Amino acid sequence: MERIVQKFGGTSVADEECIRNVANRVKVEVDLGNQIAVVVSAMAGTTDKLVNLATNVGKFHDAREYDTIVAAGEQITAGLLSIALQDVGVDARSWLGWQIPIFTDDVHGAARIKHIEVKKISERMASGQVAVIAGFQGLAPDGRVSTLGRGGSDTSAVALAAALAADRCDIYTDVDGVYTTDPRIAPKAQKLARITYEEMLEMASAGAKVLQTRSVAMAMRHNVNLQVRSSFSGAPGTLVVNEDSVVEHETISGIAYSPNEAKLTIIGLPDQPGVAATVFAALANDYINVDMIVQSGSSVAERTDISFSLSREDLEKAVNVINKVKSSLGFKSLDSSPNVAKISVVGTAMRTQPGIAKTMFETLASKGVNLHVISTSEIKISVLIDSEYSELAVRSLHAAFGLDDEE
Amino acid sequence: MERIVQKFGGTSVADEECIRNVANRVKVEVDLGNQIAVVVSAMAGTTDKLVNLATNVGKFHDAREYDTIVAAGEQITAGLLSIALQDVGVDARSWLGWQIPIFTDDVHGAARIKHIEVKKISERMASGQVAVIAGFQGLAPDGRVSTLGRGGSDTSAVALAAALAADRCDIYTDVDGVYTTDPRIAPKAQKLARITYEEMLEMASAGAKVLQTRSVAMAMRHNVNLQVRSSFSGAPGTLVVNEDSVVEHETISGIAYSPNEAKLTIIGLPDQPGVAATVFAALANDYINVDMIVQSGSSVAERTDISFSLSREDLEKAVNVINKVKSSLGFKSLDSSPNVAKISVVGTAMRTQPGIAKTMFETLASKGVNLHVISTSEIKISVLIDSEYSELAVRSLHAAFGLDDEE
Repeated sequence: MERIVQKFGGTSVADEECIRNVANRVKVEVDLGNQIAVVVSAMAGTTDKLVNLATNVGKFHDAREYDTIVAAGEQITAGLLSIALQDVGVDARSWLGWQIPIFTDDVHGAARIKHIEVKKISERMASGQVAVIAGFQGLAPDGRVSTLGRGGSDTSAVALAAALAADRCDIYTDVDGVYTTDPRIAPKAQKLARITYEEMLEMASAGAKVLQTRSVAMAMRHNVNLQVRSSFSGAPGTLVVNEDSVVEHETISGIAYSPNEAKLTIIGLPDQPGVAATVFAALANDYINVDMIVQSGSSVAERTDISFSLSREDLEKAVNVINKVKSSLGFKSLDSSPNVAKISVVGTAMRTQPGIAKTMFETLASKGVNLHVISTSEIKISVLIDSEYSELAVRSLHAAFGLDDEE
Repeated sequence: MERIVQKFGGTSVADEECIRNVANRVKVEVDLGNQIAVVVSAMAGTTDKLVNLATNVGKFHDAREYDTIVAAGEQITAGLLSIALQDVGVDARSWLGWQIPIFTDDVHGAARIKHIEVKKISERMASGQVAVIAGFQGLAPDGRVSTLGRGGSDTSAVALAAALAADRCDIYTDVDGVYTTDPRIAPKAQKLARITYEEMLEMASAGAKVLQTRSVAMAMRHNVNLQVRSSFSGAPGTLVVNEDSVVEHETISGIAYSPNEAKLTIIGLPDQPGVAATVFAALANDYINVDMIVQSGSSVAERTDISFSLSREDLEKAVNVINKVKSSLGFKSLDSSPNVAKISVVGTAMRTQPGIAKTMFETLASKGVNLHVISTSEIKISVLIDSEYSELAVRSLHAAFGLDDEE
């Protein structure tokens, strides 16, 4: 007997047929004698529709009302899946955030889980009832509905798995696991049987969309065994585990890419302390996330250049922000490149194997790919390149690091 | 300063523009210095969509899950209207059934309100904040979401008005008041300035759809001043009040009609005690509501006939039910008329003025309308006639009782 938390995303519960399919998948684990909690997202498209309604009805954005509105999506799915489970003979009941409760802080719209009172659902699970839990939502200290921010159902599932001391947390999605890279651009990509939390974190932050960074970090912190698997096939997926559980470290684990990046270079900044702080404080004040940063000597004497990457959709806003502080910064000019992509090589193998950077840069150079910015972490090397080379770069690196499926 | 509960139905909150319109209408009362609680229904079409999802996802119908699913509709509207109110500068917050709480019994899907804990919303209202309340929902003793059954938002509004000791409960709808009859079939119908609870009850049960019978009965019990008015025009509507407040009793108040009725006659039943009980118990067991009943001597010796009216959509089911008990009842034959309508004349004036029945029957006879069944209450006379005469009968009676608007 195992205790398992299963999480099904929006595409897995997109309509009545999908929900009945999920019910059958849950039943498989129930019939094996396992204790099951299921966390569900809103049906695909529902959250967007609710967000649009909330945005269109008034300019003023009250995050508490926003939470009340969007949380309805997961509430509906939880009820529907419970009915579908009962229909296939599985005892089940729905649980809303406030019913469990899942206590969060008061940051409505992006709340953090503080504590989950699992006693009631734990008892029901032990007696054989499946707990169907509305993901993404909780109860704020003010007694109102809170939500965890987009993708928050993954976080709900991991937090519940930790609180329930579950043997495993299965994240069901529309892909069947974590791949060495995106199979849509590199057909030779292979599904990984295992990946470490840290690698998964780097892959996620480098553009692999299969899991939310936040839920992986939480799984790592609480040592929750995550499994990414397909809700449409019964095949085993990818286990995300701690490093001790992964024996083989000979190769890197994957190539991630983030295609919609932009680069901004501020040319001829005075070479004085505090200049970079002024730049990035101005951007942070307008909620613009900056990723890779390099500072270099400028072509202008006694001056310096700062380049950084950011999401393409933030580029215009960032240009305006920087131009607004131009007089106080006293830079010469601003150069923006809207069409760059970030390519990352990820793997704990880097800790023990030298020469990975060399292989990466040589491979890209041999294809004529120019590198704009380079940044590294202990288990990741990222480069910013022109977007048009993205697919070529990913496929070449995938082959160069021996990841191609040769079968 | 008055304390007013306003209720807006599904067509009044059908989209973002409608909701902004409702916000402006609420603001009018707020600007007059009144304390306002607003009860909202789900956006038009939402409840049907949710009911369909719940019905399609599984045959098994768990009313607790059904309630969890459909209550999401009102939850969404409550959040949206709060944002729209804030947007026009009115302080407002949404309240869900479990947050107030509105305590109900455990009859999920058709729960009754037991007690409303109004302290919190009452304080907020006194401080100038509009309480936007999700109608139709409450909190059951098992800690789960309950719903009051279709049309339950009217009941929520009246119960809140009673609990808050409100000066008035305004039911905003897509018509601008209660008419002497349906203006679509009798263009000379007039809007009533006032009508008594009892008349409104008889009108509602006789087919006028403007208010739910249940909410009128509750308003009568708690002496809540109801007003039916249009959410699209600012004109005063119809006040539903107790009889003492209505001075004029000279004419009847209105002609109601219910077009989709059917009649079933069981011919040649044994003339023995308990036969009628067997018939109606069998129908009640299958949730078939029977309305007008007459029993008469049969053409068959020592036998009796029973006729009754019922909703047309229940006719086929009723025929099956009766045929199933044929052997135990021992009747001769079953005669069904699928195309009959019920026409009712309603008014407290009947208590003091004789001759209303005479006028009614003479008017119908002069138009060649045959009466199948007649039933009367203290303030209502109903007749069952062939459907094809419905409009003619309504218009003739409307004129005969002096209700035509002669302007």
